[in-house]
Amino acid sequence: MKNRRLKKQIDFILEIDRLKNIFRQSYLIGGRRRENSAEHSWHVAMMATILAEYADETIDAAKTATMLLIHDIVEIDAGDTYCYDQTGASSKTERESRAADRIFSLLPDDQAADFRSLWDEFEARQSPEAKFAAALDRIMPILHNVHTKGRSWKEHDISRDQVMKRAECVRDISGPLWEAMQSILDDAVSNGYLKK
Amino acid sequence: MKNRRLKKQIDFILEIDRLKNIFRQSYLIGGRRRENSAEHSWHVAMMATILAEYADETIDAAKTATMLLIHDIVEIDAGDTYCYDQTGASSKTERESRAADRIFSLLPDDQAADFRSLWDEFEARQSPEAKFAAALDRIMPILHNVHTKGRSWKEHDISRDQVMKRAECVRDISGPLWEAMQSILDDAVSNGYLKK
Repeated sequence: MKNRRLKKQIDFILEIDRLKNIFRQSYLIGGRRRENSAEHSWHVAMMATILAEYADETIDAAKTATMLLIHDIVEIDAGDTYCYDQTGASSKTERESRAADRIFSLLPDDQAADFRSLWDEFEARQSPEAKFAAALDRIMPILHNVHTKGRSWKEHDISRDQVMKRAECVRDISGPLWEAMQSILDDAVSNGYLKK
Repeated sequence: MKNRRLKKQIDFILEIDRLKNIFRQSYLIGGRRRENSAEHSWHVAMMATILAEYADETIDAAKTATMLLIHDIVEIDAGDTYCYDQTGASSKTERESRAADRIFSLLPDDQAADFRSLWDEFEARQSPEAKFAAALDRIMPILHNVHTKGRSWKEHDISRDQVMKRAECVRDISGPLWEAMQSILDDAVSNGYLKK
């Protein structure tokens, strides 16, 4: 291919196909298999488009969705770190930062910088979009657990307190979503899907 | 959950999880399995974000990406219709339209109307965004085939002429992408991945 810029972009597009082989702890609602990080990224970007209206601060919904489309690409090198895995968490930042260096730099310089900057913004959790995106990324596995009878929670012996601690960031970004999460978790405990 | 609007939105988010179980004819580049329509939607939305600069007409990249995030949701009811399946193609419009009626109407009325309108726009292939989105949706399986040695093309005995006919819409939306596609298909024929 003669167009060098386009070749780099296509190489990046081909490289990120590998995200479809990175599996998370969450099960699909049908329960047949674990979810991969590419389809998760699609799902949570859709969620951002649908639920943006609940952000307490005004957010740019399209930017939030793009942030979520790219937020897990680093897992191609770094793997998925289970959110309750404290050992994995200690090395997560370094592993993911190295992955971001390699993967985003496949793109032409200007786009590499744009994507890296958006990913850094997501990781920093300071902007309204990053805080909202991160909160949705925490809500999604709760929905998956509730609709698979707590399958992944049970496999890892997770309690309501642990889930609440991770989901606390939802309180900071949206009253209605925080209220809904609490009601959903109360039901999960009542139904025996989640330890008290 | 007390908030009826939010409940409808979450019901929709749960429903579309099923798109992860709809499998296409394309194989992942690793070649281990076929690709599903949810991860494909993520991939092609990423592609829109990266390649928007090649559109001959000015397009709204974020709108194009959102269009691609939702473009296959109808397959939850209608299934994936293989692009070279002429029998399936004859009933595709009706099956997918019924699916859109049911699935988008799970959302609150205003969002249901917005999503339906965006999906109708994609299907009509008239706006610059719809034409560009549709062209990327044709380019993606070409990339997957080329990088799996034409696996899906060979399974269905597809020729270069058939691929070119489906990809012709690329010419109308982007000079550089059209040129790249031709070079990629020439290589595919030379390498024996695609019948002449």
